[in-house]
Amino acid sequence: MNLDADVLAAFKWDDRDLIPAIVQDARTREVLMMAYMNAASLQRSLDLGEAVFWSRSRGELWRKGATSGNTQRLVEIRVDCDADTLLLLVEPAGPACHTLEQTCFFRNLDEFVAKPQRF
Amino acid sequence: MNLDADVLAAFKWDDRDLIPAIVQDARTREVLMMAYMNAASLQRSLDLGEAVFWSRSRGELWRKGATSGNTQRLVEIRVDCDADTLLLLVEPAGPACHTLEQTCFFRNLDEFVAKPQRF
Repeated sequence: MNLDADVLAAFKWDDRDLIPAIVQDARTREVLMMAYMNAASLQRSLDLGEAVFWSRSRGELWRKGATSGNTQRLVEIRVDCDADTLLLLVEPAGPACHTLEQTCFFRNLDEFVAKPQRF
Repeated sequence: MNLDADVLAAFKWDDRDLIPAIVQDARTREVLMMAYMNAASLQRSLDLGEAVFWSRSRGELWRKGATSGNTQRLVEIRVDCDADTLLLLVEPAGPACHTLEQTCFFRNLDEFVAKPQRF
């Protein structure tokens, strides 16, 4: 599917031309991570059938799992009411998190408060 | 629970001092919506045991369901690896979406492409 200019304009991109994309495991329904997409990464995701994000830190397209092998096969993309957030339902080939936890949300607030660190 | 300055500083707030919060139904595991929190709304959520966001459009605290009655009781708050996104597991008292759909993600990309509108 090719997204034309009208469709792309209908999304509510932020001031960096990005849209947040929540990633959920289509099978377990676990929320795995959140990342950002620009128009190019969304189109590339559709072309590949895999999650491709925009890396805000590196300033480049980021095919999830390109180095780790932990790719995310796209099952479905959902769009929220005001078209400013995407929900990607995926089949992950491995852990979503760079810590090798299955999900980036591997701790609750109590644990974070007890040990407030970033990984 | 009171979040002290050290814990608040450990979160990675964006340039508007906000953090995105994904809301998931704790029972059905459906992703309901995404909204934003600042430190005050996070503390208020903990105090109330209900989701309280920061309304970017109105520039004020937004207790979810304050007018509609569709509050979201907090079951658990999870924090992601780099502490820049929250995941709220909730028991919703009613539809999450202002369209009265159960979830804001009520359409998939194909439907959006066919009819690219915002609600």
